Amino acid sequence: MKEPEEFSLSCPFPISDYPNILLAHGGGGTLMSQLIERMFISTFKNQHLDERHDGAVILPGTHCIAFTTDSYVVHPLFFPGGDIGSLAVHGTVNDLAMCGARAKFLSAGFILEEGLPMETLWRVVRSMDAAAREAGVELVTGDTKVVDRGKGDAIFINTAGIGVVPHDLVLTPSSVRPGDVLLLNGDVGRHGIAIMAVRENLSFESTIESDSAPLVDIVMNLIEAGIDIHCMRDLTRGGLVSALVEIAEVGGIGITLEERAIPVREDVQGACEILGFDPLYVANEGRFVAFVPPNEAERTLERMRSHPLGESASIIGKVTEDTPGALRLKSRIGTHRILDRLSGEQLPRIC
Amino acid sequence: MKEPEEFSLSCPFPISDYPNILLAHGGGGTLMSQLIERMFISTFKNQHLDERHDGAVILPGTHCIAFTTDSYVVHPLFFPGGDIGSLAVHGTVNDLAMCGARAKFLSAGFILEEGLPMETLWRVVRSMDAAAREAGVELVTGDTKVVDRGKGDAIFINTAGIGVVPHDLVLTPSSVRPGDVLLLNGDVGRHGIAIMAVRENLSFESTIESDSAPLVDIVMNLIEAGIDIHCMRDLTRGGLVSALVEIAEVGGIGITLEERAIPVREDVQGACEILGFDPLYVANEGRFVAFVPPNEAERTLERMRSHPLGESASIIGKVTEDTPGALRLKSRIGTHRILDRLSGEQLPRIC
Repeated sequence: MKEPEEFSLSCPFPISDYPNILLAHGGGGTLMSQLIERMFISTFKNQHLDERHDGAVILPGTHCIAFTTDSYVVHPLFFPGGDIGSLAVHGTVNDLAMCGARAKFLSAGFILEEGLPMETLWRVVRSMDAAAREAGVELVTGDTKVVDRGKGDAIFINTAGIGVVPHDLVLTPSSVRPGDVLLLNGDVGRHGIAIMAVRENLSFESTIESDSAPLVDIVMNLIEAGIDIHCMRDLTRGGLVSALVEIAEVGGIGITLEERAIPVREDVQGACEILGFDPLYVANEGRFVAFVPPNEAERTLERMRSHPLGESASIIGKVTEDTPGALRLKSRIGTHRILDRLSGEQLPRIC
Repeated sequence: MKEPEEFSLSCPFPISDYPNILLAHGGGGTLMSQLIERMFISTFKNQHLDERHDGAVILPGTHCIAFTTDSYVVHPLFFPGGDIGSLAVHGTVNDLAMCGARAKFLSAGFILEEGLPMETLWRVVRSMDAAAREAGVELVTGDTKVVDRGKGDAIFINTAGIGVVPHDLVLTPSSVRPGDVLLLNGDVGRHGIAIMAVRENLSFESTIESDSAPLVDIVMNLIEAGIDIHCMRDLTRGGLVSALVEIAEVGGIGITLEERAIPVREDVQGACEILGFDPLYVANEGRFVAFVPPNEAERTLERMRSHPLGESASIIGKVTEDTPGALRLKSRIGTHRILDRLSGEQLPRIC
């Protein structure tokens, strides 16, 4: 991670004149205009922002489009493997990818707390910009609000996204069929543990980094290969189990997970034991599951593994005729148990 | 406004079981799922939400689309003439209207503070739903986050919107030409004063209500009449002057305003005097300006006035060859002065 000093050198906004966010930076006057021009527009530069309009006018073509939103309130703002800025891009790009869509346009809504160091905002903005470039998406419209000190928490970001859907797959839980095979693109639990380690000031032999990453390319690789995917879901708050319980319920299908097939890194497993978490419920930001017909399973696995974000992909379960609406775990010793959502909250403000 | 009791009767979410927002309502588990199902999805009901997916897949047709976002942090949440819920619909619908777009789809991102009365959330959700119906827009995707007590302020809402652009007008400051006539659809300053009156506990002879309203129909009436509009802008934070200064600067044009032609209600003028505000800088949420060629001015005025949101529309200025980039006010006594943005903030958290 670069040092703050290096960042400020290249910021067109005069950080030394305004080292902290003032209420006036959200007030619609000169100061807000300067912040938007010299920090946001000059960084996220594109023809839509150049219009200085209330919105962006875009021509998406004749495809269907996907539309999604997420607000990001992660605490702390910076963590190993990412920060609120990269997360705000990855999360929304990934939600679109789960709709089978390639993200094209993002909006960004900032809610800043009075007194926020401008340097912090600049680091976040730079990170968003880098993440957007990597994911091939443009930040085309935005909004900035400032709330009084003590009425927010440094930075909240909302991103909404538009993606194009270049295929006719119907990717919903109701497309999932008995016999379908369930694949996962990598090890689970890292994002949540990375955040918790910072919060609880835990140190492990090696730093556990968040898995936060844009899933658009690995997903598009599958779609472009013509794989008949039935449903996909990224594993965020509530982790693997919560995502699968929802699919089982909405699709009215039974899902059986093979515990031994689910990759969990040893350090993550160890941290979970210390913290009292189950890694199957811990949040991820670069992991997804895909349901495919059995005859597509091997090809899907191979394709996933050929992408850097799928090197440890595996087949972790299947869809069954029995137990409709329920998720079952087949343990390492061969017993079965039903998994449900957690009632509440094991990791607040994880994303 | 209905009483809280009446609202709770009709809420499918069991408010009596959970009278306040818990961190767990944002945690990805059962409680979050219940809140989303029984408060949000059951209220904003539509086929996109029925999919329970990470995003909505929509077919916008062959038109261009407009895309915009705003976060809403207004304080207090409820004020005469509106609340944060209706504002979050109107503001985004209006930003799309300014792009010449008819809003079709909204996203909604809630950032809730732990401890928020569920009843308050329900009133806001109901108000959003009513405003969305009135504006002809569907809430198709959303997100809910909960932050710990003292790290937010009751409710923040982000909405992003997609609208269709059924015409070929190029509505930007650079389309504005010398000679163009500037129209305004009604009196200015009411939204800001309505908020300040509640905050400062001021009472006037009659309650000053916010002008918050969806501008989509009045704008589409102009576009469908074939009026060759050059640019539009709604007058939010920073009011009439800030919007016009930006257009003058970006378009490199001179604008002269006729002070006497700008409608300001007597009670609003009086309140501004008490509070030390200039109504030309006070926020509105149902007011916009339009630049049209001189030969279209009378027809535009007539069309505006035929709509309930344009009954007191007027011609308030014109675009000049001289003073490019500047906004001038011709006062009631005939003198001219340059108007600029305020540096900072006269009304924090107005929207």
